Amino acid sequence: MKIVVLKFGGTSVADVPQIKKIGLKIKEEVELGNRVIVVVSAMSGVTNNLIDLVKRTSDFPPYSEYDNVLSTGEQVTSALLAIALERLNVRTRSWLGWQIPIVTDNTYGKSVIKKIETDNVLTSLEHNEVAVVSGFQGVSSENKITTLGRGGSDTTAVAMAAAFSADRCDIYTDVDGVYTTDPRIVKRAKKLDIITYEEMLELASQGAKVLQARAVALAMKYGVNLRVLSSFEDLPGTSIIKEGNNMEKSEISGIAHSLNEAKITLSGVPDQPGQAAEIFGSLAQFSINVDMIVQSSSINQKATDITFTIPETDLLTAEKTIKKIQKKIGFNKFTSDTNVVKISVVGSAMRNQSGMANIMFETLAKNQINIHVISTSEIKISVLISSDYYELAMRSLHSAFGLDI
Amino acid sequence: MKIVVLKFGGTSVADVPQIKKIGLKIKEEVELGNRVIVVVSAMSGVTNNLIDLVKRTSDFPPYSEYDNVLSTGEQVTSALLAIALERLNVRTRSWLGWQIPIVTDNTYGKSVIKKIETDNVLTSLEHNEVAVVSGFQGVSSENKITTLGRGGSDTTAVAMAAAFSADRCDIYTDVDGVYTTDPRIVKRAKKLDIITYEEMLELASQGAKVLQARAVALAMKYGVNLRVLSSFEDLPGTSIIKEGNNMEKSEISGIAHSLNEAKITLSGVPDQPGQAAEIFGSLAQFSINVDMIVQSSSINQKATDITFTIPETDLLTAEKTIKKIQKKIGFNKFTSDTNVVKISVVGSAMRNQSGMANIMFETLAKNQINIHVISTSEIKISVLISSDYYELAMRSLHSAFGLDI
Repeated sequence: MKIVVLKFGGTSVADVPQIKKIGLKIKEEVELGNRVIVVVSAMSGVTNNLIDLVKRTSDFPPYSEYDNVLSTGEQVTSALLAIALERLNVRTRSWLGWQIPIVTDNTYGKSVIKKIETDNVLTSLEHNEVAVVSGFQGVSSENKITTLGRGGSDTTAVAMAAAFSADRCDIYTDVDGVYTTDPRIVKRAKKLDIITYEEMLELASQGAKVLQARAVALAMKYGVNLRVLSSFEDLPGTSIIKEGNNMEKSEISGIAHSLNEAKITLSGVPDQPGQAAEIFGSLAQFSINVDMIVQSSSINQKATDITFTIPETDLLTAEKTIKKIQKKIGFNKFTSDTNVVKISVVGSAMRNQSGMANIMFETLAKNQINIHVISTSEIKISVLISSDYYELAMRSLHSAFGLDI
Repeated sequence: MKIVVLKFGGTSVADVPQIKKIGLKIKEEVELGNRVIVVVSAMSGVTNNLIDLVKRTSDFPPYSEYDNVLSTGEQVTSALLAIALERLNVRTRSWLGWQIPIVTDNTYGKSVIKKIETDNVLTSLEHNEVAVVSGFQGVSSENKITTLGRGGSDTTAVAMAAAFSADRCDIYTDVDGVYTTDPRIVKRAKKLDIITYEEMLELASQGAKVLQARAVALAMKYGVNLRVLSSFEDLPGTSIIKEGNNMEKSEISGIAHSLNEAKITLSGVPDQPGQAAEIFGSLAQFSINVDMIVQSSSINQKATDITFTIPETDLLTAEKTIKKIQKKIGFNKFTSDTNVVKISVVGSAMRNQSGMANIMFETLAKNQINIHVISTSEIKISVLISSDYYELAMRSLHSAFGLDI
């Protein structure tokens, strides 16, 4: 008998009527003869309310207690969904992270799944019970509740699918699939029927919000048969597949943008070995992810400029850290700019086709858009531009890469 | 080193400012050199909101999922209080029922504590951590979350005090102790400095809301040194003590009232053995507690009237059940009346002093208050009267038993 994993996020479990509605969808899946594992997020707004309660209690809450508070959001949804399913005469049992258990490391707030025990849930599935799992949570070796970081329910769903060798993992969301770009910005954005893991991973990492990058990486690692589809409409959605299965795809899959960017420039950094390591090491201590980096060639062979980007939300901490190491490094000054947006063009086709970067740069030049920083991967080109032009950039690139048609 | 248990309920943990405030009180207790276990309820209104969510999802929710939802209220409070304590530099750890564990039976919704493991919490206490325990919850042998029934946090506190041989168990509440009667009804109600377990148990069982009867019974069984005191004012409160320690107490401790009463009368019940067992057995099947019972002497030796009281909230179920057994029993008709109140006078002194019942009946007669049913225990007399007169009855009894002074 097939095992399927269905994940319902935010707006799909917005309120009680919506929870009852997805109960019906799950019942259909059961009636097809499948064993069903459902993963749910917190109801709309609940997580933010809980975060607010914590913040009002302390500016520096211990992470493990923070997780303890936050995990109740998913706990309530999973129990309510189990209640809704019983009402539809569907046999069920809800599962919290510690009950399965989903064992994580002890990094509260953004823990990593180490192991999922399958015995308990399998026994329940064999008794024809739908397993309704609280997403986003696990349990540490200290027997405390952990959370997987914001949006971690996608990760729970994919990890469950991998652990139970599920036939498929369907991520139900408030959009009907993965688009070539954000349809709110580019009217001509099109839904993709298929996309490769690699492309989806790049899109998610570069700012597309439809799926969590970490969940995509996990799906890729374990070959989980992943789909994104609408909880509100009965449409086929987007399948995330292995490269090679992907005969008919166009050259470029999509264009992502990220507004949560800050650019920092350190001027007059002495050109000595180890200076970059010192700078980025200090930031890493505060878990600040440095993304794009460019080092201008040293004019007098003695000093260089280093420009890099970090999440805008980390800017305050980064500025404090940099001030502390100014003496040690000996740079002249630093400036920061939050009026920047990162635009990324993603497509497996980049591997085999030259000229993609050229199309990008020419298109931006034609529209008088200045590029601050560039970074590339095998299947992606990202540019940092002024946020004044990001909608124009996205529209013109969408058109230039033939995605409008 | 002494272990003390402090319990904070509803209004004491109403909101974040209040939680921060009790953090200070706990810090004082720690600074006295005590090892502290704190038990908390859900924040004001939270449990009702959660019940509402469940009710909107299904009229007949499975009890275990109901408990799963409800337990999150106490989970959030305990984690927030731990966060507030850390902010005050008090070392702490929050504990959920399953983490301790507090092992209960599998009667979801009103489970009974079978065992409390002390090892984990003791280790934490020895590391000078305040143990902040979620009240009201435990874990079943099926590894599911259970709840102890409404107001169960008092029971958690007393059970923890018993399991850890605590020096004392302080129940912080929104009143400053146990009163001779409800001060909202009788202006001259006085706070008691001491009361015996037996008296407190009768008062709680007969409608006094300051402590849960079950918690009092547990405290009596294990000789827990129990106090009720105000979380808002620094006052001595009421100590609940063993009889015999209680030299100076007045004859009567208090007067309780219960509005949640319904009177049912079955007329013309054939006077045969087993009829009462049949009637009350049927009600017991639906967990309906029958309280006062009176059987009128049979006039023609063939049929009697049976009058009894049940909680008003169970009336609909009771009426349905009685209709079903009418043929089998063969009584003529049944009537019900919800316009009744039970007034109970409680005091250990009743054991040794005659005439207490007489004072009660005479006082009511003098005020033209008709008594429907009477029931007594060793230290209590209860009467059922029309609810039109209950304030008058309470005031005049308070005065007649010398409690006004």
